[in-house]
Amino acid sequence: MSQMIGKQSISFKQCPYILSSGSVAGKKEGEGPLGKCFDMICQDDKFGADSWEEAESTMQKEAAALAMGKAHVKPEDVRYVFAGDLLGQTIATSFGIMNYNIPLFGLYGACSTAGESMSLAAMCVAGGYADLVLAMTSSHFASAEKQFRFPLEYGNQRPVSATWTVTGSGAFLIGTSKSHVKITGVTTGRIVDYGIRDSMNMGAAMAPAACDLIAHHFEDFQRKPEDYDKIITGDLGYVGRQILLDLLKEKGFDISGIYTDCGIEIFDKDTQGTDSGGSGCGCSAITMSAHFLPHIEKGVLKRVLFVPTGALLSTVSFNEGQNVPGIAHGVVLEYEE
Amino acid sequence: MSQMIGKQSISFKQCPYILSSGSVAGKKEGEGPLGKCFDMICQDDKFGADSWEEAESTMQKEAAALAMGKAHVKPEDVRYVFAGDLLGQTIATSFGIMNYNIPLFGLYGACSTAGESMSLAAMCVAGGYADLVLAMTSSHFASAEKQFRFPLEYGNQRPVSATWTVTGSGAFLIGTSKSHVKITGVTTGRIVDYGIRDSMNMGAAMAPAACDLIAHHFEDFQRKPEDYDKIITGDLGYVGRQILLDLLKEKGFDISGIYTDCGIEIFDKDTQGTDSGGSGCGCSAITMSAHFLPHIEKGVLKRVLFVPTGALLSTVSFNEGQNVPGIAHGVVLEYEE
Repeated sequence: MSQMIGKQSISFKQCPYILSSGSVAGKKEGEGPLGKCFDMICQDDKFGADSWEEAESTMQKEAAALAMGKAHVKPEDVRYVFAGDLLGQTIATSFGIMNYNIPLFGLYGACSTAGESMSLAAMCVAGGYADLVLAMTSSHFASAEKQFRFPLEYGNQRPVSATWTVTGSGAFLIGTSKSHVKITGVTTGRIVDYGIRDSMNMGAAMAPAACDLIAHHFEDFQRKPEDYDKIITGDLGYVGRQILLDLLKEKGFDISGIYTDCGIEIFDKDTQGTDSGGSGCGCSAITMSAHFLPHIEKGVLKRVLFVPTGALLSTVSFNEGQNVPGIAHGVVLEYEE
Repeated sequence: MSQMIGKQSISFKQCPYILSSGSVAGKKEGEGPLGKCFDMICQDDKFGADSWEEAESTMQKEAAALAMGKAHVKPEDVRYVFAGDLLGQTIATSFGIMNYNIPLFGLYGACSTAGESMSLAAMCVAGGYADLVLAMTSSHFASAEKQFRFPLEYGNQRPVSATWTVTGSGAFLIGTSKSHVKITGVTTGRIVDYGIRDSMNMGAAMAPAACDLIAHHFEDFQRKPEDYDKIITGDLGYVGRQILLDLLKEKGFDISGIYTDCGIEIFDKDTQGTDSGGSGCGCSAITMSAHFLPHIEKGVLKRVLFVPTGALLSTVSFNEGQNVPGIAHGVVLEYEE
């Protein structure tokens, strides 16, 4: 009767459903390959606010409004919000969703927060604790650069291994009512530290965590790569993609035919100057919401493993010479007729 | 059959138990009124580490080891950790618990994280997702001052409304095996903003959130103050205490006879110069672990409402002129023979 399977996974007996989602993107993301898919693109990356942080909060507010609006539900119908972002003390989340007055579980899993929020939201609904919850995350290029790197005005150069933080926020309304997309299981990640110390190479820092997660997922669910139509990581980018494929091959898994990464999908690296690809909580959230979810809803993709990845560092830990460990959280999304 | 009650609470059908806990405290906390209760007191607030942040990580590691050791369980027996701290990108947690290799749900709820982690841990166990999980948090006076205020060397003056961040980490092992302390319910907080802008008066910023939580808790569970032996907030301190009592009186609840605050219990303000009292995630965690939990275990306290409170700010949000909203999370702990 247990829903626990293997060492770190859950297979839901009563599956929760994704009822709707909302995606808000910045100007650059709107100019990329997925530009036509996003619900809202703002030509002003400040979203009418006075600061980058407030702009990010505004995106969360809008993404939640879109998800709720599409499903015709009001904030008072939503029992919990599971949300987080990349900023210190997750202020984009606090000031973004405050006015909805929904009980909040604040999360921090770096860029893996999209997977963490969806996992906990699904567990909450499947556990009988709520009929309707929101899982949401955001990131903003300018607030992230300010938080983690240099002031934009400094115009620092970027190595080709660097990723470009996506300006975007994605919200998912998860509940007990049926839809065409159900969450059938989750695999929760452990912190994996490969000793990477280059904060400009997040792909390398996170790929080992994605590998650990995916390998344990296969083991726990007793599945193979062929059991999935797509395996989608969050923001490994081109550098991390290759490392992940190599590491998984060493463990005997070849996922190259079905593998992609939200950070690779969201930008055109040849014309957009985004180096290794997109990153940030918003990257996986809006790419899933706007690009992959509609394919699952239509049954084009029948079973998908969504694996947002996060790099666990702060400027303090980095400046104190700590490594950049990674974490990943896996969510299984399946089509239901 | 539902476990949901009212607008924001859960009453567990199968209650999870607190099997053990561990408390690690700093030197000053060891000199306070609860000094004899803590499992471990370190005379060196750097805990042998090179930085304040590493010291805080070391405390988390030790607190988890203590909790697991007391219950004779190994890290591989623990299915999930629910943990967080106050630092940007919650680095004390990431680097503290990394080596245990336990799947992690990273949390941020400011000082309310002790309640948030216990709530989600209890929901996880009661939902059938795990037999054994860890809920833990930490704070450190020096890493928090560095994060939120001034370098220690600056020697800034403190107003009497200021609280003193507790150096400490508390870990709780929660599971399905029976013990004398069960978690019978949780009430999850919403963000409450009373327009406070003084980051040196956290008590005033958080008291309205505690009031909102406690009032909704009474409503959801259809209980009155008399139904509790103690109602214990996290770190409102002397200033916040009075505001909370006044606000609840306006709503028709008089909790003055059974109310206390971990921030008031942990220091002797007359001799320790701690102004309004202790604060930080570690304050409520170690005061609950070392002081109140043994009273519940012995049946001296039969039913307790534990309400850790958090102030949602960062130096960025504060410097950009944002308010300091609050949040609180409530957990009901009951004695079982």
